[in-house]
Amino acid sequence: MPVPGPGYAITARVEAPASASAAGDITMAVGRVGGVVTAFDVVESHTRTLIVDISCNALNEAHASEITAALEALPGVRVRKVSDRTFLLHLGGKLSVESKVSLRNRDDLSRAYTPGVARVCQAIAANPADARRLTIKRNTVAVVTDGSAVLGLGNLGAAAAMPVMEGKAALFKRFAGVDAWPVCLDTQDTEEIIRTVQILAPAYGGINLEDIAAPRCFEIEARLRELLDIPVFHDDQHGTAVVVLGALRNALRVVGKKISDCKIVVCGVGAAGSAVIRLLRSSAPGDVLAVDIDGIVHPGRDGLDDNLRWIAEHTNEARVSGTLADALVDADVFIGVSAPNLFGAEELATMAPDSIVFALANPDPEIDPAIATAHAAVVATGRSDYPNQINNVLAFPGVFRGLLDAQARDITDAMLLAAAAAIADVVAEPNPSFIVPSVFDAAVAPAVAEAVRSATGKQDVAPV
Amino acid sequence: MPVPGPGYAITARVEAPASASAAGDITMAVGRVGGVVTAFDVVESHTRTLIVDISCNALNEAHASEITAALEALPGVRVRKVSDRTFLLHLGGKLSVESKVSLRNRDDLSRAYTPGVARVCQAIAANPADARRLTIKRNTVAVVTDGSAVLGLGNLGAAAAMPVMEGKAALFKRFAGVDAWPVCLDTQDTEEIIRTVQILAPAYGGINLEDIAAPRCFEIEARLRELLDIPVFHDDQHGTAVVVLGALRNALRVVGKKISDCKIVVCGVGAAGSAVIRLLRSSAPGDVLAVDIDGIVHPGRDGLDDNLRWIAEHTNEARVSGTLADALVDADVFIGVSAPNLFGAEELATMAPDSIVFALANPDPEIDPAIATAHAAVVATGRSDYPNQINNVLAFPGVFRGLLDAQARDITDAMLLAAAAAIADVVAEPNPSFIVPSVFDAAVAPAVAEAVRSATGKQDVAPV
Repeated sequence: MPVPGPGYAITARVEAPASASAAGDITMAVGRVGGVVTAFDVVESHTRTLIVDISCNALNEAHASEITAALEALPGVRVRKVSDRTFLLHLGGKLSVESKVSLRNRDDLSRAYTPGVARVCQAIAANPADARRLTIKRNTVAVVTDGSAVLGLGNLGAAAAMPVMEGKAALFKRFAGVDAWPVCLDTQDTEEIIRTVQILAPAYGGINLEDIAAPRCFEIEARLRELLDIPVFHDDQHGTAVVVLGALRNALRVVGKKISDCKIVVCGVGAAGSAVIRLLRSSAPGDVLAVDIDGIVHPGRDGLDDNLRWIAEHTNEARVSGTLADALVDADVFIGVSAPNLFGAEELATMAPDSIVFALANPDPEIDPAIATAHAAVVATGRSDYPNQINNVLAFPGVFRGLLDAQARDITDAMLLAAAAAIADVVAEPNPSFIVPSVFDAAVAPAVAEAVRSATGKQDVAPV
Repeated sequence: MPVPGPGYAITARVEAPASASAAGDITMAVGRVGGVVTAFDVVESHTRTLIVDISCNALNEAHASEITAALEALPGVRVRKVSDRTFLLHLGGKLSVESKVSLRNRDDLSRAYTPGVARVCQAIAANPADARRLTIKRNTVAVVTDGSAVLGLGNLGAAAAMPVMEGKAALFKRFAGVDAWPVCLDTQDTEEIIRTVQILAPAYGGINLEDIAAPRCFEIEARLRELLDIPVFHDDQHGTAVVVLGALRNALRVVGKKISDCKIVVCGVGAAGSAVIRLLRSSAPGDVLAVDIDGIVHPGRDGLDDNLRWIAEHTNEARVSGTLADALVDADVFIGVSAPNLFGAEELATMAPDSIVFALANPDPEIDPAIATAHAAVVATGRSDYPNQINNVLAFPGVFRGLLDAQARDITDAMLLAAAAAIADVVAEPNPSFIVPSVFDAAVAPAVAEAVRSATGKQDVAPV
């Protein structure tokens, strides 16, 4: 059953008769209909009346209305206003652009702007590599989307994608000191997206692609990697793959298995699943079976696109076909990045002993985590209300910190694997409920950055 | 003769024998070769030696070397290091992106990012106008260039234009609290520039075009104004025109003339000159003569492009032809946005009594300001070392503050003229040396913003 979370939090301003029991009456009324009270503040206190702000988490809009109704039903109580705290937080957007130089007087202006700035421009024109030294390029990443696959919500377009991209930029700053800027493109034409990013690239030290639908995202990423001299990272692909690989490393430590002995089922072959499969291959697993809505992927299947064709040819050594249930028999690891409620206890029981289940579909996993936990040795999800949350925030800030610091020109699987290992190794002693560090563990981003920096071979790196 | 300015400032770390006269010897050595000392700091003091940092303004690189040599020539003195303060200031770029929301804990993350952010995205998808309420669009301007006309330096390209655009963004924040972001485009194709800006536009509340070469800039501006539902302002055109018109308003007050009686010569018909002419027309001047390198613009001249054709048809009522010298005879006002040293005292003497001369070519004006001041009633330049500096910083921050606050969808001549009047009216009692306020006058941007906001007719404004 879903639990009210901070994603839907309201604050109600309530006028109530002054009495010793007012606070208790109000908070209990909220609690009775399932609201989770997070704060209670008296705003004004008069002889006969009391004005209070009560904040609580709710499930959804209907639940918020139910909570409001429960308050209004109290004798003498009037709800003056209900504010949605998530919307309040978004008013005016989540980012600001700040000047790092002071502009107090004419001398400051003369250095930061004309006439002094002319010499800096000329220096860069004479030596383009100086852009990394004398402009924001050194520390700045573009967070690029076409709005075609926003979260799990689908094709909402450029404007509606902004809150996610702004949030991503805020996370980049919070966790790794990276300046990131939302670039929401009002086109969903592959060629236009590629060309636009190419045109914008000189100002940036890296490109983070985000929420671009598959299979378009594969071509955009591949082509941009060819065209640009800065690293191109698609978080839905590579961010997810890095954290999954890191979590898998620790899960295997917990159950005492080697990846080379494991049969791994990857369910879902969109952006995330495809990238997980590609990065898994670099770790030499026993075998990988890719499964999508049409069952196990194999070279004989009809209608394979370029991405599925590649996967068919590089997984499934025995060339088997069948359903997800068939794939799960004797599997050591299940990695789901697909859809809710695809299987249950019965199929789970056919997996090999000490099975590992990563059910990452959000908000509803491929298998009920309660059922999974009862049968599998290690369970991870994408949710914050269960242990072992697979969250890309563990990867992308540190990955770009490392790439920028190394002035990397591209990104390799070796760097991604190093990042995965770094995330895993922040957990000194993994156990079934603790295979990945907390996203608030301050050790993660520096460890990932250092791992990525070390993995940038000299041949990939611009001279410092 | 040019004077050392802060645009070329150096700091030399000097090791000198400890003595009572050391400070004097060092500062005098700098002064003797024309360096302007701005700071002197003792870094270390030992029994026999002294380490000091001496900062001074120089003319250029050769002059900086001369200053260094003068220091080294002092007995026992060694220059350890010379730092260029302008380059030091630019290290790592001039902007940062900051999060306006706190991300301390999981609840914060749940509201600013997933899962809470999903509802905000859905709200914008359902009602696109909410983007101005719930994203950075409300306060954010793109500073767009193709790097084709960077300052007076010419076609330096996208990367080398960054220091100017970063500086511009810093000024936007400093003077009007506007979040501005440098968008340096690695293309100089008119169609690609237009299309790229259109693709990027959803994230921004306004577009500030900058340092794009004429005549390309005219088409880009006109087409984008047609295509976009946010205001498009080309600072080299409209910013300059606004400040020139504001300065002219006060200059005419000083000499007691009405613009409807004035013959005005505009020299230079690039981006700035063309926009000055177009905005002048809205003020119903007596007559305007446009002059370029081929002389007075008139409809009978060969090889007029679209821009010059329009100017020829809308100026020069008497359809005269001739040289700049011909144009100046009996002119009340000269406005130069062209090239250095085009005329002298002789031509100036042919102008009408109480003439007004705006010689804005930078760094060397159309006429030596010393000569101009001896003959004209009011003289303005683009330079900070003479009175009456015509500086776009007086206009663009306040203009965009007003446009953003009004959620304006376009920009009109009425708004630009209102901005010009507001700049002029900040000066309570203009005199020949004081026709425009200081760029550091805190009253300017709010006055301009209010004027622009008031000038946005309801038909131009999105519902708040």
